[in-house]
Amino acid sequence: MLHSKLIHPKSIVIVGGSDNIHSPGGRVLKNLIDHKFKGQLFVVNPKKEVVQGVTSYNDISDVPQVDLAIIAISVKYVYEAVKVLTQHKNTRGFIIFSAGFSEKDQNGEQLEKNIVRLINDAGGSLLGPNNIGLINKHYTGVFTTPIPKLDEKGVDFVSGSGATAVFTIEAAKNMGLTFSSIYTVGNSAQIGVEEILEYLDESFEKESSSKVKLLYIESIKSPLKFLKHTTSLIRKGCKIAAIKAGSSEAGNRAASSHTGAIANSDLFIDTLFRKAGIIRCYGRNELITVAGILLQKEIKGKNIAIITHAGGPAVMLTDVLSKNGINIPPLEGKDVEILLSQLFDGSSVSNPIDFLATGNAQQLDAIIEYCENSSEIDAMAVIFGSPGLIAVDDVYEILNEKIKTSKKPVYAILPSVVNVKNEIKQFLKKGNIAFSDEVLFGNALAKVINRPMASDNNKDTDFKFFQRTRKLIEGLPNGYMPTESAIKLLDYAGVNFATPFHVKNKTELHTVSKSITYPVVLKVEGPLHKSDVGGVILNISNETELYDGFHKLMQIEGATSVIIQPMLTGMELFIGAKKETNYPHVILCGLGGIFVEVLKDVSAVMTPVSNEDAIKMISDLKAYPILEGVRGQNGINIQLFAEIIVKISKLLDVVPEIAELDLNPLIATQKDLTAVDVRIRLEK
Amino acid sequence: MLHSKLIHPKSIVIVGGSDNIHSPGGRVLKNLIDHKFKGQLFVVNPKKEVVQGVTSYNDISDVPQVDLAIIAISVKYVYEAVKVLTQHKNTRGFIIFSAGFSEKDQNGEQLEKNIVRLINDAGGSLLGPNNIGLINKHYTGVFTTPIPKLDEKGVDFVSGSGATAVFTIEAAKNMGLTFSSIYTVGNSAQIGVEEILEYLDESFEKESSSKVKLLYIESIKSPLKFLKHTTSLIRKGCKIAAIKAGSSEAGNRAASSHTGAIANSDLFIDTLFRKAGIIRCYGRNELITVAGILLQKEIKGKNIAIITHAGGPAVMLTDVLSKNGINIPPLEGKDVEILLSQLFDGSSVSNPIDFLATGNAQQLDAIIEYCENSSEIDAMAVIFGSPGLIAVDDVYEILNEKIKTSKKPVYAILPSVVNVKNEIKQFLKKGNIAFSDEVLFGNALAKVINRPMASDNNKDTDFKFFQRTRKLIEGLPNGYMPTESAIKLLDYAGVNFATPFHVKNKTELHTVSKSITYPVVLKVEGPLHKSDVGGVILNISNETELYDGFHKLMQIEGATSVIIQPMLTGMELFIGAKKETNYPHVILCGLGGIFVEVLKDVSAVMTPVSNEDAIKMISDLKAYPILEGVRGQNGINIQLFAEIIVKISKLLDVVPEIAELDLNPLIATQKDLTAVDVRIRLEK
Repeated sequence: MLHSKLIHPKSIVIVGGSDNIHSPGGRVLKNLIDHKFKGQLFVVNPKKEVVQGVTSYNDISDVPQVDLAIIAISVKYVYEAVKVLTQHKNTRGFIIFSAGFSEKDQNGEQLEKNIVRLINDAGGSLLGPNNIGLINKHYTGVFTTPIPKLDEKGVDFVSGSGATAVFTIEAAKNMGLTFSSIYTVGNSAQIGVEEILEYLDESFEKESSSKVKLLYIESIKSPLKFLKHTTSLIRKGCKIAAIKAGSSEAGNRAASSHTGAIANSDLFIDTLFRKAGIIRCYGRNELITVAGILLQKEIKGKNIAIITHAGGPAVMLTDVLSKNGINIPPLEGKDVEILLSQLFDGSSVSNPIDFLATGNAQQLDAIIEYCENSSEIDAMAVIFGSPGLIAVDDVYEILNEKIKTSKKPVYAILPSVVNVKNEIKQFLKKGNIAFSDEVLFGNALAKVINRPMASDNNKDTDFKFFQRTRKLIEGLPNGYMPTESAIKLLDYAGVNFATPFHVKNKTELHTVSKSITYPVVLKVEGPLHKSDVGGVILNISNETELYDGFHKLMQIEGATSVIIQPMLTGMELFIGAKKETNYPHVILCGLGGIFVEVLKDVSAVMTPVSNEDAIKMISDLKAYPILEGVRGQNGINIQLFAEIIVKISKLLDVVPEIAELDLNPLIATQKDLTAVDVRIRLEK
Repeated sequence: MLHSKLIHPKSIVIVGGSDNIHSPGGRVLKNLIDHKFKGQLFVVNPKKEVVQGVTSYNDISDVPQVDLAIIAISVKYVYEAVKVLTQHKNTRGFIIFSAGFSEKDQNGEQLEKNIVRLINDAGGSLLGPNNIGLINKHYTGVFTTPIPKLDEKGVDFVSGSGATAVFTIEAAKNMGLTFSSIYTVGNSAQIGVEEILEYLDESFEKESSSKVKLLYIESIKSPLKFLKHTTSLIRKGCKIAAIKAGSSEAGNRAASSHTGAIANSDLFIDTLFRKAGIIRCYGRNELITVAGILLQKEIKGKNIAIITHAGGPAVMLTDVLSKNGINIPPLEGKDVEILLSQLFDGSSVSNPIDFLATGNAQQLDAIIEYCENSSEIDAMAVIFGSPGLIAVDDVYEILNEKIKTSKKPVYAILPSVVNVKNEIKQFLKKGNIAFSDEVLFGNALAKVINRPMASDNNKDTDFKFFQRTRKLIEGLPNGYMPTESAIKLLDYAGVNFATPFHVKNKTELHTVSKSITYPVVLKVEGPLHKSDVGGVILNISNETELYDGFHKLMQIEGATSVIIQPMLTGMELFIGAKKETNYPHVILCGLGGIFVEVLKDVSAVMTPVSNEDAIKMISDLKAYPILEGVRGQNGINIQLFAEIIVKISKLLDVVPEIAELDLNPLIATQKDLTAVDVRIRLEK
């Protein structure tokens, strides 16, 4: 939890404050003064008595007791300053702008650790080092400009990059976005994005807290903590949109199995965000556009009325929304006729509602009124610009009123950023948000409407299952599990497996051959990718074929034995799982063979997986219709497939040491589902 | 061809010109005067002698001979005005702002036609009605603001929507985009987008003409004309980016076959644009961002250096470029070490090149110099903003110099739209372009680099093939061709077909049964979707099965006969073709069965299809590795598959009456490819 002195300090000292407002120490002081910090301010500056009208101490030892220190001095003096402040001044909040710590070299890293130790020992909180600070309703502790418009109901913005925070605030300004707080974590020496989320979660108050959180993240150190607090915030009614940058490099990482190759780091982020219910964004513009939508009234459905005096942009918005599964329902009926009669000749009310270039404020009023009362419409997007001939103040005033009085969200898309620049400024001043590009808006609206829903996490585990499983695992070393153990594990978990015989030599083969029912399949043991080396022989239907096949397989390089399994016929399915350090497992499923290997048609969910999650992940497969049965072909028992996914999820919960798991293939008929091959790799 | 008096009038009359600059007639006059039209200006206004200092005639009959008329009067007076102007004033250029024509009702449509007839009879050119006019280097004939910065080398912009043109110009202003000309076609009564393209093509001069064309299109009336001139312009060295709005509705159109369902109108646009080599965009912001890249030096490869003083945006840009197949190559070697030594401690030159928040102009100079001389880099993207502490003029000045002197493109991404607003304005004034969002820029850059290449159109047709084929077609009515004729057509085209026997009754079956080689397959004739009604029986291996199968199939509702074909085994492929009014055919290909029906894994190209096109469309399939052979399975003869696609393309060229064609399946082995089923629908 963040120390209250970091959040709400009654006194602040700027160590390295100066009159030079082009330096961090000078500018942060100016920002605090300009934005009327209500507590006491002090400065430490070796050469001045007064800095920007504030008392300055030449020696830090002379500073009075102070809640928060903002440190903007050379890296080499920081440790000493923190020591004095923690030990003699009762300072518990720290923001360190200085750079040259862990981001630079090993010495810097050590120094950073030492400083954190000092602050930890004192029970204090540190933001930074190497950040731009924090802004909240109590103070503007940043050395950058601009300071955005602050508003309790604005967005809370947590950024892993100071520059990205500044550029995002700048871009947001022209849209009219307001902020409730901004945290930049710099090197995250003590407080990272996860800790800020924890604070926002634990200090959340339903009535007064902002419901919109924006995140810019470059790394997630504690995915479980991240998941816990984002999920919790979303359950409390918040919406979270986030950028996780740096996804592409990690995506190239090599991996040893099919599941591994598909389940790269970016998939972990994707599934993590979906698990929590976070809207994933990829750029600043997208992030603030999504935020601009989230800050407005909540949209309750998927039906949008597009209202405009300009055809083109409405058509482009229709296109982008339709492509993303959002409806632009045609409007029909008596009331629509009445509406049409209030518009100029030639207007169209079929949706998009086009009330022509000559359309006026009264007409816009009538249109929004109609949509507000129509059960077919959930939200309105009004596109209204100007070719530069006439004033649009009256239109924007109606828009302003309607946004405030309508129960449904009314989004303002005001494309004339030159012609009616001043009118747009006026519109924003009234607390509104304006979008300028209809397609960027449309993409963001679709993201908001189609955002993932946080899933339920019921983790009930059978005690007997737990005990047997743990006992089995504890006896095993790292690496690929022996097949027999893996089969036993599946048996404990309740997953059917096609019982195999392992045969090392002709004598064993002779014994086994007495008890098998043909047809069977032979698979070599030893080589990793059996099919690549011709190590699988299907449809063995008599003893001669059995002996021939065995002989052939044992001659493959690396062959240690041969597995004999019943030859099952049915649809080939696939379930895989993978773990990445500190993350929960990701489970993947799909149809086997070419569907996973060539077409990459795979669905992924982060564990724990509920039955509902499993059904959804199966139905998200492109090949889903095949599972249901197409064109006279039988489908499979989809519920059973889901149950096995849930069973694997429970297994992973009990055995977090499973680094990779492949059930490939599982053979499915209309009734049954049986695993035919299994590979499990442990990493304890 | 557009009349020279529309393009370069020596005199202009504003019919409906006035002193009210909030009316179209008043504002267009003001624009012409403000932007210093060099020829003579007249006004027709029944109540004034002088309007905005220009001589005004109360009666149009009194106007002197005049090249161009801009008409901004009530719809009901337009015909008479055009009549006087064409017949007595030698006027040959017309721009009609007035609305109330074909966009409104049938009377308007008739009136519009009558006006076009007057102008056609006089050999004149008409832009509009219901548009905002045109801007070129000779005059600013629009009634809207703003008038963008004009430059011979700026973009030529053709828009089907006046409002979209205005909003696009407004958005482009903040980026520094310049324009060479702007045409808005309104109702396209005589001149549409295609005619403007024809004009731009035919008047193109290598040295002086702009090389960048932007299009906003809502409908393409003459796809062939559109294709001809866009392809021609691109061959002459132009780049074209275009929005085709209104794609989503058309996409929902019902269709009667699989090919039909996949080949919706939007696919026609997609394949048309690819055929020509046009970059397809979906919104205004995207269009101008692409244009901003196209206006700069041409990028010769896929290797980008990202240069920045701010980590976050560089990481996001890396992500978006990597995801789109663009390289950010790591930089290595001695020269890189020398570069690093010129930067502040802690800088990174691994690419992105991060020269820290404190990075300065000299360092930027050195970095760009390095990249300019590195053979591993094709272009540089410089992201440089400001947290608001220090001036960045010197950095932007270096950027300006380097953009002008480097042989490689240097893109400026200047995100601090608030903090260094004025510096950005200065930068733009020097003729530069600045992007503000790195991810929107990155997506656009990837579109430019990955743009389709115009394909070669060699249409050599064998005369004997032409004669036989035309003779066959001319004897057939509209609708589905009888299977025998369709097979004959394939035979003429050189496509193998599994020779079938058609059997209507037991007597015929008896005769046929003597001459067939088992195994065979039986298919019912009559019902449209054979598999849906269980109308296909595979692997008939003896006479008993033959008789049983025949009996069973003939009992299906609608059954008229049964086809007996050799049972071929191999991979199922699919080739389809579809035509949409006025468009060339689109050919589709893919693997048969579930690949086309469930997974929609289909590739499409507009005819004529060269061998190269065919190979590319095959390799674009997600299932392509299966065709090559995966995991021990044999592949197919891909060149043969391509050849059949080319043969079908030639067939479609000779028989444009083919509305739909389905070869599904074709059975492929490593050597051969044989069509097993064919359906062809004619629409003469």
